[in-house]
Amino acid sequence: MSIITLTTDFGTKDWFVGTLKGVILKLNPKARIVDLTHEISPGDIRAGAFALRAACRFFPRGTIHVAVVDPGVGSRRRALAIQTDDYSFVGPDNGVLSFAVAGQKLREIRSLETADYLLEPVSRTFHGRDVFAPVAAHLSRGVSIRKLGPRLQTFIRLRWPEPRAHATSIEGEVVYIDRFGNAITNLDMAALAALGADALEVRLGGKRVCPVAEFYGSVPTGRSAAVLGSGGLLEIAVNGGSAAQRLKLRIGDRVIAQPRSPK
Amino acid sequence: MSIITLTTDFGTKDWFVGTLKGVILKLNPKARIVDLTHEISPGDIRAGAFALRAACRFFPRGTIHVAVVDPGVGSRRRALAIQTDDYSFVGPDNGVLSFAVAGQKLREIRSLETADYLLEPVSRTFHGRDVFAPVAAHLSRGVSIRKLGPRLQTFIRLRWPEPRAHATSIEGEVVYIDRFGNAITNLDMAALAALGADALEVRLGGKRVCPVAEFYGSVPTGRSAAVLGSGGLLEIAVNGGSAAQRLKLRIGDRVIAQPRSPK
Amino acid sequence: MSIITLTTDFGTKDWFVGTLKGVILKLNPKARIVDLTHEISPGDIRAGAFALRAACRFFPRGTIHVAVVDPGVGSRRRALAIQTDDYSFVGPDNGVLSFAVAGQKLREIRSLETADYLLEPVSRTFHGRDVFAPVAAHLSRGVSIRKLGPRLQTFIRLRWPEPRAHATSIEGEVVYIDRFGNAITNLDMAALAALGADALEVRLGGKRVCPVAEFYGSVPTGRSAAVLGSGGLLEIAVNGGSAAQRLKLRIGDRVIAQPRSPK
Repeated sequence: MSIITLTTDFGTKDWFVGTLKGVILKLNPKARIVDLTHEISPGDIRAGAFALRAACRFFPRGTIHVAVVDPGVGSRRRALAIQTDDYSFVGPDNGVLSFAVAGQKLREIRSLETADYLLEPVSRTFHGRDVFAPVAAHLSRGVSIRKLGPRLQTFIRLRWPEPRAHATSIEGEVVYIDRFGNAITNLDMAALAALGADALEVRLGGKRVCPVAEFYGSVPTGRSAAVLGSGGLLEIAVNGGSAAQRLKLRIGDRVIAQPRSPK
Repeated sequence: MSIITLTTDFGTKDWFVGTLKGVILKLNPKARIVDLTHEISPGDIRAGAFALRAACRFFPRGTIHVAVVDPGVGSRRRALAIQTDDYSFVGPDNGVLSFAVAGQKLREIRSLETADYLLEPVSRTFHGRDVFAPVAAHLSRGVSIRKLGPRLQTFIRLRWPEPRAHATSIEGEVVYIDRFGNAITNLDMAALAALGADALEVRLGGKRVCPVAEFYGSVPTGRSAAVLGSGGLLEIAVNGGSAAQRLKLRIGDRVIAQPRSPK
Repeated sequence: MSIITLTTDFGTKDWFVGTLKGVILKLNPKARIVDLTHEISPGDIRAGAFALRAACRFFPRGTIHVAVVDPGVGSRRRALAIQTDDYSFVGPDNGVLSFAVAGQKLREIRSLETADYLLEPVSRTFHGRDVFAPVAAHLSRGVSIRKLGPRLQTFIRLRWPEPRAHATSIEGEVVYIDRFGNAITNLDMAALAALGADALEVRLGGKRVCPVAEFYGSVPTGRSAAVLGSGGLLEIAVNGGSAAQRLKLRIGDRVIAQPRSPK
């Protein structure tokens, strides 16, 4: 089996993603290609990193995860393959792989330089097609990561914003807004448990307060709640609506969780 | 062979659909996964039911159709698997499967409760990943529907609006608007044939009239026509344009078919 | 192996693409189906032709490329299968296949008329489902193109705008705008080389000038550059932004390449 997942900012309007698939299938007709998403906002490395981190662990061991959000294509930024205990990751060295591999044991990091495994000539504008797709296809055929280029000791990691603990509250921020308008924060179950309270609430922008609840429908339609989301992070939601729109939430907005105040 | 189709309101901007595919492939690496659509408007159970109904019968016997439009996720609404003579259907018990199974012989209806076939722990926010995807994967591996949970006698069905026959006309309504702006109605060929006339026309909103024609291009560019669409339902179209925009049509709008009046 | 690619204007909001896949898999459960794009603007034959041309050659020999941008569906326009040395192409005879097959050796051109290979009855509104999908599936199963219908000598070709050479410059136009807002022109490397200069620049609308550079990031963020794109055509880009928006570029806009003027 050889599953290759794709996470890009290529969109689906043009032929870019289809071209990657053609390149892969030409090299390995048996590859299974799965789209994670191609709707990362153009150049939003952070959102790509977040999406890949959220989805990658649900795939079988041995899956090859390719992420191409690559505003620096054609410049001197390196191209990477990273092997962990469970997966291989392929993409530009700009941080887009860094959330996904955090916490995994890294076995090999290689710079993609061996011309045999690239499409020749390598363009200056489309490394998804010329570098990352062919490398993923070769890996899926069993080529060793060690053949792809020189070993690296390090690579670029994006900063993950850590929650800050205060006396009786914990402070985090919005890190992602999903299709439903749910605003996902960096507050996880451990951070919330540290507050040691049965009932919690969340303060947004200093004044707006919503309860921490079990699921979206625990509050009436149109009301907001903070719910421990499917990725293990607290998210601000509006039952039947978009929290981002109704509460004007943006990435980076401050979110404070605290014990629920008595009514 | 084991085909699994997916119909959801997850969109393609995030990693949700990719995650479902990872879960399925981990349980059954040989599953063929086909996207019907993931662009159902958030929470629009009716549109999801309509899309699934329109597409499901074109798939081979034995296909497993999964539909996840699930605003009540996390609440007490049940989760269903329904087996018919031709297909299996998996989704929440909120009506989203009901148009597709209408008219098919139902062999088994089960409530998805057997923990062995779910992802543990089941979240309160993402049953697509934790309930519906793993159940579909297990079914595709040959697990009997009877193992999934207790038998049900009934499930929630959405009301399908039936056309109303008048003395010399038949009254229906717009039930779906597609990507091209075509407004699909609930008037089918049988309803139109009952009018017993060779040439028909359609009245919209009491005054606007357009002819019933054979195909979109039977009228000049920019003009409207009612055409018997590919799903067997009469649809209001504008040649080369969007009928929904030009004629300001919305779901629920009244549509009356009648013999064409002499000019 | 039997790869079938799909290029359509069906969008992904409805069940149309899923239905095509069902039809194909019912006839050939082993077919590998790859989406090139379904986001061609409704009826934009030219954009569909351009996308198919750009992507098709990256697929393995023997791939069957289906393109359905078909505003004339239901009218008397013919339906085509074209076999070249490398690929089969299937679609309406309205030019949508013509850019892709240009420059390839044509071995057979057939009009799709043999009812055995179509879905009966053929609708007047959805030949993607009733004509093109089943024909592609039959081809992928090894049915000879000669069985599909009578041989044709000719088919409709869209005009490809050729660059015009002037004394010290070459004049082209914008032919496509991609998801990133890059404006792809009809100026290729041969046309540029004919100018015989080391450093080139591009004039837009008579006054705006930008340098011809090697990659998007060769100019500062927010600045424009003309880059030889991944498909071998010069494209106008803005580093980190949308050239189409910032420079108000549209398809058909004039673009003049000339030796760079001394500062």
